[in-house]
Amino acid sequence: MPREVTGFSNTTVKLLRSLRDKKARRAEGLFLAEGLRILTEARDSGMLPEIIAFSAEGARHPLAAEIIAATEAAGGDAIETTPDILSKMSGKDNPQMVLGAYRQPAISLEAIDRTRAPLWIVAQALRDPGNIGTILRTGDAVGAGGLILIDDCADPYSVEAVRASMGALFTQQIATARWPEFLPWLRNGQGQLVGTSLKASHDYLEADYRQPCFLLIGNEQQGLPAEYEAECDLLVKIPMAGRADSLNAAMATAVMAFAIKANWR
Amino acid sequence: MPREVTGFSNTTVKLLRSLRDKKARRAEGLFLAEGLRILTEARDSGMLPEIIAFSAEGARHPLAAEIIAATEAAGGDAIETTPDILSKMSGKDNPQMVLGAYRQPAISLEAIDRTRAPLWIVAQALRDPGNIGTILRTGDAVGAGGLILIDDCADPYSVEAVRASMGALFTQQIATARWPEFLPWLRNGQGQLVGTSLKASHDYLEADYRQPCFLLIGNEQQGLPAEYEAECDLLVKIPMAGRADSLNAAMATAVMAFAIKANWR
Repeated sequence: MPREVTGFSNTTVKLLRSLRDKKARRAEGLFLAEGLRILTEARDSGMLPEIIAFSAEGARHPLAAEIIAATEAAGGDAIETTPDILSKMSGKDNPQMVLGAYRQPAISLEAIDRTRAPLWIVAQALRDPGNIGTILRTGDAVGAGGLILIDDCADPYSVEAVRASMGALFTQQIATARWPEFLPWLRNGQGQLVGTSLKASHDYLEADYRQPCFLLIGNEQQGLPAEYEAECDLLVKIPMAGRADSLNAAMATAVMAFAIKANWR
Repeated sequence: MPREVTGFSNTTVKLLRSLRDKKARRAEGLFLAEGLRILTEARDSGMLPEIIAFSAEGARHPLAAEIIAATEAAGGDAIETTPDILSKMSGKDNPQMVLGAYRQPAISLEAIDRTRAPLWIVAQALRDPGNIGTILRTGDAVGAGGLILIDDCADPYSVEAVRASMGALFTQQIATARWPEFLPWLRNGQGQLVGTSLKASHDYLEADYRQPCFLLIGNEQQGLPAEYEAECDLLVKIPMAGRADSLNAAMATAVMAFAIKANWR
């Protein structure tokens, strides 16, 4: 049976609140996901939270009740609490009625089986957690296997990234690596590394994309470093019609990922 | 010559600070743009601020100096101020060294000449100002004429939208309208209204897009209302490979806009 917890100083409440902070997430190996839609996505992908917190109203929803029961059956902790406390946990004025703390999966390259999917997204030094979440969502939509984060990226397990991913975090494999680790790993197997560049001569619609394709996206401000571009097997150009010389990083990912998928039809 | 202003209670400082608030923006007819990159974009698109504020460091940049001089030559107000005050104006800890207050252009449908561009983006009830800015940036990249905002959308002149647009706000025409105004305006001339729907039978890559094309994008949570879908001349489907049944609204706009452009090559 769920415990009822109404004190801000309760240990579990404090733990869940702490997960908005990156250091605490790393120390605990947990991250926070909010809302029935995302928790259902997780459950359907085979993942249950280690701790689930919900309001009395949340517990009345049949789908939430199922996930709460499944969490308890799997040995997880279920706490019923107040909207106020849920609000403090999520940092939002209008909190979701249910949230869960999930175990962070392994995030090393070795955990990735590249043959599992035709497309993988590789993002370098992405600073905006919202972009990371959005790119995960796009990856899911396009059937990518996952997202490899190169160099210093925002935390894919931050509340903002999890929110923006709309649950895709649970369907996409995530790995982090430095470039000098990533490159030998990539070259130790099949894989075409594709980058975008305004200086490229290949049009992005007419290029020859091979599977598994690793789509490399650069930092929001600087784009890809020249030495990373130089390692690409294929550099393509997305023509720009307007004054702007670039797309938002998440937009460029979506346009490229869908173009690659279209190219394979 | 620029005035030097160092007091938080100075009238111009107060006016600029107030522009982070929607009501003040509307009352003054002004909006704030920050940073040399965006101000240069504006200047190159023929627009100068009515008020320009900058730090001593900002004024030393040759490009900033040019824009400051041009603003004054055009009768605008130029104030040199402190980083602290710039920070208060922009609401950021690390403010840009230069920012400008620009006159909001007319935003009625009547101001739009649809023959000016092959593609127009129409967004319905978009709540996230970042999405609006990103869609403006995508519109610029793809050569769209502008963005028509239907029903209650976030303010395209908010600081967040202007930032995310990266200056595209100055190259894209913007109009706002209610649906019952938009529809007669649309039907009173050439124009194909295109929506996306998971129930559509046309694949988005193989549809017949006509110019001028009006790409209709729905609200982030609800998507398009059924009665809006019913008015579309063409409904297309972006196939989803993963668990997710939708793309982020700004992603869907980018994927569709680039697919339409590719279709016309």
